[in-house]
Amino acid sequence: MTYRVGIINVTGYAGMEAARLLWNHPAAKLVAATGRSLAGQRLGDAFPSLGLYAALPITETIEESVDVVFSSLPTAESAKACAPFVRAGVKVIDIAADFRLKAPGAFEQWMGGGQPHPAPDLLAEAVYGLPELNRERIAAARLVANPGCYPAAAILALAPAVKAGIIEPSIVVDAKSGISGAGRGSGGGFGYSEVNEDVSAYKIANHNHQPEIAQELGALRGGDEPRVTFVPHLVPMTRGIHATCYAPLARDVTQAQVAELYREFYRGAPFTSVAAAPPHTKHTLGTNRCLVHPVVDARNGMLVVASVLDNLGKGAAGQAIENMNLMLGLDQAAGLQLPAVYP
Amino acid sequence: MTYRVGIINVTGYAGMEAARLLWNHPAAKLVAATGRSLAGQRLGDAFPSLGLYAALPITETIEESVDVVFSSLPTAESAKACAPFVRAGVKVIDIAADFRLKAPGAFEQWMGGGQPHPAPDLLAEAVYGLPELNRERIAAARLVANPGCYPAAAILALAPAVKAGIIEPSIVVDAKSGISGAGRGSGGGFGYSEVNEDVSAYKIANHNHQPEIAQELGALRGGDEPRVTFVPHLVPMTRGIHATCYAPLARDVTQAQVAELYREFYRGAPFTSVAAAPPHTKHTLGTNRCLVHPVVDARNGMLVVASVLDNLGKGAAGQAIENMNLMLGLDQAAGLQLPAVYP
Amino acid sequence: MTYRVGIINVTGYAGMEAARLLWNHPAAKLVAATGRSLAGQRLGDAFPSLGLYAALPITETIEESVDVVFSSLPTAESAKACAPFVRAGVKVIDIAADFRLKAPGAFEQWMGGGQPHPAPDLLAEAVYGLPELNRERIAAARLVANPGCYPAAAILALAPAVKAGIIEPSIVVDAKSGISGAGRGSGGGFGYSEVNEDVSAYKIANHNHQPEIAQELGALRGGDEPRVTFVPHLVPMTRGIHATCYAPLARDVTQAQVAELYREFYRGAPFTSVAAAPPHTKHTLGTNRCLVHPVVDARNGMLVVASVLDNLGKGAAGQAIENMNLMLGLDQAAGLQLPAVYP
Amino acid sequence: MTYRVGIINVTGYAGMEAARLLWNHPAAKLVAATGRSLAGQRLGDAFPSLGLYAALPITETIEESVDVVFSSLPTAESAKACAPFVRAGVKVIDIAADFRLKAPGAFEQWMGGGQPHPAPDLLAEAVYGLPELNRERIAAARLVANPGCYPAAAILALAPAVKAGIIEPSIVVDAKSGISGAGRGSGGGFGYSEVNEDVSAYKIANHNHQPEIAQELGALRGGDEPRVTFVPHLVPMTRGIHATCYAPLARDVTQAQVAELYREFYRGAPFTSVAAAPPHTKHTLGTNRCLVHPVVDARNGMLVVASVLDNLGKGAAGQAIENMNLMLGLDQAAGLQLPAVYP
Repeated sequence: MTYRVGIINVTGYAGMEAARLLWNHPAAKLVAATGRSLAGQRLGDAFPSLGLYAALPITETIEESVDVVFSSLPTAESAKACAPFVRAGVKVIDIAADFRLKAPGAFEQWMGGGQPHPAPDLLAEAVYGLPELNRERIAAARLVANPGCYPAAAILALAPAVKAGIIEPSIVVDAKSGISGAGRGSGGGFGYSEVNEDVSAYKIANHNHQPEIAQELGALRGGDEPRVTFVPHLVPMTRGIHATCYAPLARDVTQAQVAELYREFYRGAPFTSVAAAPPHTKHTLGTNRCLVHPVVDARNGMLVVASVLDNLGKGAAGQAIENMNLMLGLDQAAGLQLPAVYP
Repeated sequence: MTYRVGIINVTGYAGMEAARLLWNHPAAKLVAATGRSLAGQRLGDAFPSLGLYAALPITETIEESVDVVFSSLPTAESAKACAPFVRAGVKVIDIAADFRLKAPGAFEQWMGGGQPHPAPDLLAEAVYGLPELNRERIAAARLVANPGCYPAAAILALAPAVKAGIIEPSIVVDAKSGISGAGRGSGGGFGYSEVNEDVSAYKIANHNHQPEIAQELGALRGGDEPRVTFVPHLVPMTRGIHATCYAPLARDVTQAQVAELYREFYRGAPFTSVAAAPPHTKHTLGTNRCLVHPVVDARNGMLVVASVLDNLGKGAAGQAIENMNLMLGLDQAAGLQLPAVYP
Repeated sequence: MTYRVGIINVTGYAGMEAARLLWNHPAAKLVAATGRSLAGQRLGDAFPSLGLYAALPITETIEESVDVVFSSLPTAESAKACAPFVRAGVKVIDIAADFRLKAPGAFEQWMGGGQPHPAPDLLAEAVYGLPELNRERIAAARLVANPGCYPAAAILALAPAVKAGIIEPSIVVDAKSGISGAGRGSGGGFGYSEVNEDVSAYKIANHNHQPEIAQELGALRGGDEPRVTFVPHLVPMTRGIHATCYAPLARDVTQAQVAELYREFYRGAPFTSVAAAPPHTKHTLGTNRCLVHPVVDARNGMLVVASVLDNLGKGAAGQAIENMNLMLGLDQAAGLQLPAVYP
Repeated sequence: MTYRVGIINVTGYAGMEAARLLWNHPAAKLVAATGRSLAGQRLGDAFPSLGLYAALPITETIEESVDVVFSSLPTAESAKACAPFVRAGVKVIDIAADFRLKAPGAFEQWMGGGQPHPAPDLLAEAVYGLPELNRERIAAARLVANPGCYPAAAILALAPAVKAGIIEPSIVVDAKSGISGAGRGSGGGFGYSEVNEDVSAYKIANHNHQPEIAQELGALRGGDEPRVTFVPHLVPMTRGIHATCYAPLARDVTQAQVAELYREFYRGAPFTSVAAAPPHTKHTLGTNRCLVHPVVDARNGMLVVASVLDNLGKGAAGQAIENMNLMLGLDQAAGLQLPAVYP
């Protein structure tokens, strides 16, 4: 059987990447793709990189019958677009941030510019789509909130340590992202000449991925959220996230113990693994992989964990397809076992 | 049936890329991979981007029984390594330059540093592996000389015009290449700090891809080689070749006529197509595609053709697998229908 | 004595670069700078790279008394803004393209979208500001048309050969530019994620720098313009132009003769010199230098000349200051003797 | 008066940058430059970016009479080369790390591979060359230990907070560096194709700049060194360091108080200033500037400070010249007031 997939806003980077990854999926096929600005064009014409989709029209709305929908609309718009599909029995993966934050008022504070959530009942049932933590719940979900790219990297870096209680709940996440994380329509401020040969931080300790990280790590501690200082940076590359995470050790552990703890935690996870050396973002380019590398800084009693992923892969579209696979009862790795494009 | 493939020198970029592309091939499987400096390691450990090959050892020589061998050894070494496999009945695709130049003395002059060709009988029978020109001969070959990355781009840009006789035999090929074209072991001169934010030409009108271009274009004119001035440039990106080709028009033709001529020439070619606008190298990243775009400069009576490809794809490993498919009687596009990684 | 300089549209890249270079000029000082979108801010606040200009306000118009004005407004707007200053006796260097093309109708055809030139009398008297060709006329001018970045590179590459009559009047100029050439306000199409890791041609044989190159090379042949096929390309770097120029040799010359011809032509030129090896754009970064490198392709009877410069230096603001120096009777190299920023 | 300067190992990046900056210095002139591998060539020929030094020979040793010497030799070699000059009364600035760590055994542990320091008496008298902390001592010194690039960024980010006692002595320094920080001879591992489009950490919590940061911050606390977890990262750009520093607040302070504290600390410092927004490395390119930006993360009781500089400027050669200016009694900013090269 081949499942029928629709993408809402295929013209965003995450939407484009989902289309790219679906081309060779053994059990799912892209049959509908929306995108307001380019509606009326064929997907393969609008984006020459997707030239294989020569026949697929970009439409204003999804009219085809579909089994699954991905949405990569901007925040707040996405929830509105997803809701009717969920209610109609279509499996929905929201790549936007609308269904991630559960705390009352969190959406208004961080996402909605003061507007209330457009579908609070669905927010309550949405499952956070990180299979390393929530595999069974994802498999049973109608609606999955796909993780943010930074939180995916940070949570995978920290989850084993938080779960095992070996670190204090006072965490620093210093994240470096390629420019595609800013999205296709990002416009001003991301021109090549300014961004190239430059590193800068932004939204220091004030980015809406901070509460997302805290919420999910908190869930591993019975709901007691750790303090998380999160600082994102832009670095001059197109794809990739490198999260470097720091937390004081809560008890004496050796490097060997921590490495074993991490390996054990991710045993069985098809896409997250423990690297023996500091990992490179480029080792994940174009894939759904995440590599984590914990280091005990015994001199200072600190745990340092580096993690890397492709922000459009495990940080967005790859993760979305992994979630789709689970929701449809397919092999979790279907269509996603790809070597990285290297060099 | 699954064919068994060996790669000689998997540690070069072309070898790595062949391994990457073979992972998802429906009818071929990498079973042996050599690489002197890393022999003894597992391929997936030596190159984390190829982590899926966790079990495949890198060996000094190919001991496994194989149906096909790719060689990406340096020039002159490669012919020596290929010869025994050809003689043993294994299909061989030489990604190096050893079997490309047919003229007496050409190998000595351009490749061998004065040394004679190590296997002149095989040189005579080797088929130049550009399926857009030599599809049937490749299918019947025991030994294929895989085109150079620059010649692949230049020949595909010029073949329709040369074949149709619409240009004078006085051609300029101005090519821009990403740095991976220099190879993994290139060392000095390709350090990041020097190459980044820099463009330069090298081997001006003196690169060994010049006679290769002239030879193959000459074959389209009954052996009468055109003059080809070939200038390669390095540009600060990892992958991609952009060839811009210039030749005086030999007769009055319109833009529409030339576009139609090109479309007709490549009708049926699964990987080369005519772009309606100036093509971008990035639209081919990670793929076996070539995009060509002819423009009539009526003001000056000149034909300009831009062509783009991934130097490790259609310019090396992708092309090698396409040749393998033909040699084995498989679908020409097997394992190679991949959207480009974009952005 | 210190001359007082004004910059019209300091917020464009050429304007910013002029301000940067003027900071350490021994005999000129920036006293006024306009820029509509940022008017009201201090220059050093609007652009942290120019933080040393902490006190200089960006204004809507130049109210200060000035001796010299640079304009880097967009085409067509610039002529209108320059005219009153010329008529008021202020020396004017127009970095825009408005005063470059002399042929009747050329402005309408190439620049003005069909609109007539706003100041045809000034167009007639404007001097093309390439000191290697027009040193004395620049020194006597009230209004200088600063060369385009591509023409500067191409003309300096070709002038010695054209002047000496050693090439046929059938020229190909294949130029590669960093992205800053597109200007600060270029917006769509120059986002980092699209431009990075990409090369593409644009406006193939249809760019308005083509007639500029032809006009100035024609002036070296008594007004007989050569055919020029000009193809610009964007490469992923911020600054730098590499022009590779091709023309059939009109008579037998040796490499040594051509090298000597070029060295002789540029003897005494403070900023253009003949490189012994293929030059690198990065060797000119941040400077007013141009390096040219002629190669005789004896096999094909072709002259190849590579030239490099910084598109914001010798291709714009550096050149403008060199012109200013000449117009004011200063040392031609005043304020411009800078080593390149390397690596 | 013009002081005579020698550079030991001008062929390293820091040496090249010192030569670049000295070209326009009003009171110092480069008269001797050593470099083993290139000895015998002219500096302007060996490095076309320094073409203005057409007459200066690269020699094996400094034979000229000099007033000041910079050394950018590799660690351990440098101390041996510097010692004779210091003893001969020449002012010496060691850009290498040899004279930085004062604690007994620190050189052996971190720098010397177990070898003892070659000049312990000079180690004792060497002054750490960060003028924002040690202006008077530098002015009186015979021998200055120029700070490491990472420590320069980190110490300038943290000094005001450490001095004022507003943070706990438990510090994280997450630093991102351009590739030139690895040095010109770095070879393997820094090839363009591997480094481009990649971010990775290295020497996690184990880099020899960690004790340097701790030592100098400790000096601000009466010798009581804070814990410093230092993790350097390589990002794909040539120049620039971005240090992001984290420490728990020791008492309640507001954003406004911290900003004022920082501004007050750097009032009068010609090259370090407090940025009102997150600073960009590119705003310092080619200069001796450092921009720091403190942020109070009140939600988590954490101070975050971002700082940026050019690793070859304030992180190496620019800093060295600033130190030279002080040691010679010149204006601290002589020759160093340069706008950044931007874009």
